[in-house]
Amino acid sequence: MADQAFVTLATNDNYARGAMVLGKSLRNHNTSKKLVALIAPQMSEPCKAVLKRIYDEVREVDVLDSGDTAHLAMMKRPDLGVTFTKLRCWTLTHYSKCVFMDADTLVLSNIDELFNREELSAAPDPGWPDCFNSGVFVFRPSLETYGKLLQHCTDHGSFDGGDQGVLNSFFNDWSTADISKHLPFIYNLSSIAIYTYLPAFKQYGGNAKVVHFLGKTKPWSYTYDPTSRQITGSAHDATTHPTFLLDWWSLYSRTVVPMLQEQHGDQPF
Amino acid sequence: MADQAFVTLATNDNYARGAMVLGKSLRNHNTSKKLVALIAPQMSEPCKAVLKRIYDEVREVDVLDSGDTAHLAMMKRPDLGVTFTKLRCWTLTHYSKCVFMDADTLVLSNIDELFNREELSAAPDPGWPDCFNSGVFVFRPSLETYGKLLQHCTDHGSFDGGDQGVLNSFFNDWSTADISKHLPFIYNLSSIAIYTYLPAFKQYGGNAKVVHFLGKTKPWSYTYDPTSRQITGSAHDATTHPTFLLDWWSLYSRTVVPMLQEQHGDQPF
Ligand SMILES: O=c1ccn([C@@H]2O[C@H](COP(=O)(O)OP(=O)(O)O)[C@@H](O)[C@H]2O)c(=O)[nH]1
Ligand SMILES: O=c1ccn([C@@H]2O[C@H](COP(=O)(O)OP(=O)(O)O)[C@@H](O)[C@H]2O)c(=O)[nH]1
Ligand SMILES: [Mn+2]
Ligand SMILES: [Mn+2]
Repeated sequence: MADQAFVTLATNDNYARGAMVLGKSLRNHNTSKKLVALIAPQMSEPCKAVLKRIYDEVREVDVLDSGDTAHLAMMKRPDLGVTFTKLRCWTLTHYSKCVFMDADTLVLSNIDELFNREELSAAPDPGWPDCFNSGVFVFRPSLETYGKLLQHCTDHGSFDGGDQGVLNSFFNDWSTADISKHLPFIYNLSSIAIYTYLPAFKQYGGNAKVVHFLGKTKPWSYTYDPTSRQITGSAHDATTHPTFLLDWWSLYSRTVVPMLQEQHGDQPF
Repeated sequence: MADQAFVTLATNDNYARGAMVLGKSLRNHNTSKKLVALIAPQMSEPCKAVLKRIYDEVREVDVLDSGDTAHLAMMKRPDLGVTFTKLRCWTLTHYSKCVFMDADTLVLSNIDELFNREELSAAPDPGWPDCFNSGVFVFRPSLETYGKLLQHCTDHGSFDGGDQGVLNSFFNDWSTADISKHLPFIYNLSSIAIYTYLPAFKQYGGNAKVVHFLGKTKPWSYTYDPTSRQITGSAHDATTHPTFLLDWWSLYSRTVVPMLQEQHGDQPF
């Protein structure tokens, strides 16, 4: 059987920091799967180098220069740039099954059991719970599916301007067809859900396996004081549970920063 | 086959106004089912009289004076008063199947097809989407289930202090067992969901069948000018879609207010 892999995407140095923490969190929980990062060519060399130390495979993808069907689709829908890049994960056909994870997710325990699920498995989106959230999903790489997805993008666009809209309208029976394709919400616990129904978070949140820092403010938007181990600055407009944010920063400062420093040498970053 | 019924609950005159609008909205969309309102004894006579004109059955329930198992459960968990009253719907054993609807819901089209579903069917809660929202659910009246529910309440309480917490921990395989028990979200469209993921609302909200004015501010908390057909006052802290709020008020002022006026005679209300 071909390999199985966790896949993420980072088009710039900021999301790369997220991908580094995500990769480290998967390794720390002893995943037996391969780790793949899709990156854009403009990423800095030090970031690429660090990603290569954490990930088994770091693959450059660029819809703009590709000259293939993605390129054609892109010409018609320039608004969907990052979306097309995310869909590229379906081209990883040297893996039999994959789990895509946004670069703004953090793994809190081993989640290799996700590979028992079929395409397309995902957790509900708290905003509109008949949609799945596209921050964590199980899929099967396939050039046929990839082609159909691009065609769907070109024909119908995305109702939310991003990959989540496209994927939900493509896999449009997710909410009605098969309960096994509903990942438990604790595999994609959106930080905002914590505040909308706090008693449920208190009841079930202790079992969280993946936290997803969705929304405008990402963990790397904050600053952190490693000595006092506290988030500094505007942490209080945070829509994120402070504990998860500290988990992210603790992993980042302990394990990722030293690698970045090595790569940068004397240069500041 | 015994009858089937839509069931709601109103313990006071405010929620009674909601129940009147809900009942009217079911009638306007030509339901073929019976309509049942559970009420508390302290409700005013005019409200009772109007409910009796709209509903087939208006039944007084009072956990405090009942002297039965609900009474005993209540003594141990006085915090769960309204919750126990809602669970009373399982005692309506002269119906074979029922759909419970909160008094703060409004029906936008015929929804009799809900009776094709089994206990316990409900729509996901947008706050924590592995929980169902207990504002709309399909159930089978049964004294056995009723007894077990009360016992569960007494033993475990409610993680959110209300009926939703109890029902979710009792029917705790809802999120994993059977997709047919997941009602589409458009059967319980929470007004707050509209703003958390607006593109999805724009995409799917046009098919809404039931809107649920959940949260602290209810339609009857606003004031309405029937001449200009506008919500007046603090409508702008509204977490509710203005169109749905106007739908509620339009139905209330056109069909419910005249009935209340008749009942009140010269008395102001
Ligand atoms: O400029 C960008 C924007 C997004 N992404 C990738 O696309 C995912 C989805 O975007 P984001 O997480 O910002 O969306 P949200 O989850 O907040 O809706 C990210 O996690 C990254 O993996 C990226 O690489 N570069
Ligand atoms: O004082 C009360 C509170 C609640 N209810 C009933 O219980 C339901 C659930 O309460 P509510 O709708 O206020 O909760 P929410 O949906 O906002 O969470 C209401 O719709 C009513 O049917 C009632 O009759 N009297
Ligand atoms: Mn994300
Ligand atoms: Mn309600």
